Amino acid sequence: MISKNQLKFVRQLEQKKFRREEGLFVAEGTKVVGDLLKRYHPHTIFATPEWNEEHPKAEATEVTPDELRRLSFQQHPQQVLALFPIPTLRESTFNASHFTSSLALALDGIQDPGNLGTIIRIADWFGIDTIYCSSDTVDAWNPKVVQATMGSIARVDIVYTDLPALLDTLPTDYPVYGTLLDGENIYNQQLSSEGLIVMGNEGNGISEAVRQRVNRRLLIPDFHQGETADSLNVAIATAITCSEFRRR
Amino acid sequence: MISKNQLKFVRQLEQKKFRREEGLFVAEGTKVVGDLLKRYHPHTIFATPEWNEEHPKAEATEVTPDELRRLSFQQHPQQVLALFPIPTLRESTFNASHFTSSLALALDGIQDPGNLGTIIRIADWFGIDTIYCSSDTVDAWNPKVVQATMGSIARVDIVYTDLPALLDTLPTDYPVYGTLLDGENIYNQQLSSEGLIVMGNEGNGISEAVRQRVNRRLLIPDFHQGETADSLNVAIATAITCSEFRRR
Repeated sequence: MISKNQLKFVRQLEQKKFRREEGLFVAEGTKVVGDLLKRYHPHTIFATPEWNEEHPKAEATEVTPDELRRLSFQQHPQQVLALFPIPTLRESTFNASHFTSSLALALDGIQDPGNLGTIIRIADWFGIDTIYCSSDTVDAWNPKVVQATMGSIARVDIVYTDLPALLDTLPTDYPVYGTLLDGENIYNQQLSSEGLIVMGNEGNGISEAVRQRVNRRLLIPDFHQGETADSLNVAIATAITCSEFRRR
Repeated sequence: MISKNQLKFVRQLEQKKFRREEGLFVAEGTKVVGDLLKRYHPHTIFATPEWNEEHPKAEATEVTPDELRRLSFQQHPQQVLALFPIPTLRESTFNASHFTSSLALALDGIQDPGNLGTIIRIADWFGIDTIYCSSDTVDAWNPKVVQATMGSIARVDIVYTDLPALLDTLPTDYPVYGTLLDGENIYNQQLSSEGLIVMGNEGNGISEAVRQRVNRRLLIPDFHQGETADSLNVAIATAITCSEFRRR
């Protein structure tokens, strides 16, 4: 049984402003909620009797399928909807010494929730455990993004930050990769096992301020005779780039 | 100026049944319509004065922005909406001799319009000029697919066919690739410059009937320590696979 106030509260979490004020985000479905429960402690769980039976220790608020539909942001809600605290990562977890031992992604102004969700899923697949997002990147705790990650948001750390300022804290010779029109063919390049891979906005690519700080310029070449697609979708370009880094 | 009948006619083209009866599909926006006009003759064009001024020879029906909004399937219609005949490819253009000289994609039950559109765009980028779709793959002339291709649908031929039957017409040693859980690491495999690459359904992968006819089994390995994403999105897997074929 849910109250009107509970319903209103959950529905308001569609708005970034409200999510930030409350420090909470919404996750839905057995897979996404299940993955998050392995790492994070939930704030509230609303679940149908079916889910509760399988998770007797979860202390979920029982709801009817109809109540779940009213709470949900999905077309086809699936057994459970939970609120989790938005993870806050301490500065110390993403300082230069963390950088220098691994590969991370930096997203510069990604706008589409589906793209961000897919990129988080790709990072998870390729064992990239941190994504740095520019302040103007779409919010990762938007319900659309959370669902598009298919649970990967439970395993990848997301840090919103001032990207140019972050890049300025790095040693000058630290590898900062970016795919740019004047870059070198990615298939022939030496790629390091640590570094930052910058992916840019859907329409405009990497911003000028960040571009100046990219010191390894890459290009994914096309293979079409004559005219071809103008560009690859940013999630597709991310996948190809991560695949190139990892296969070596 | 558009009539009520014209409006109704265009709106009905959202349905596959109606598209097949009329042999027409809808394309929208300067980029997609522009790319299609380079290859195909349109049936009807509805365009704002702005577009007409730039395309005086197109003989478009002039519409107001408000009329365009009523015709459109897009949230933000952009200057032009056109109807094109659905291309019909003769059997002779996709017989075994065409296969044996190039790389093509075969899609086995792709359901999501966005995924199909993205895959068509990927094929275009990687110079793959034909995609064979199983009969139960989502219709490529669905307005959502057409828009998701960003114009690539003008350059890639799409053939709906009985996939197992098509595969049976090929020489037995002709390379038919598929990504399967028991496949060999794609990064270490010899990949041919001709062959058919089969990509399967979002949830269930490649169907049993098609799987039996795959003679080169590939696997995209993950790189996560411990638990990871269960799978890659099918469009992402297609991109990584095409990238591996083309980079060699």
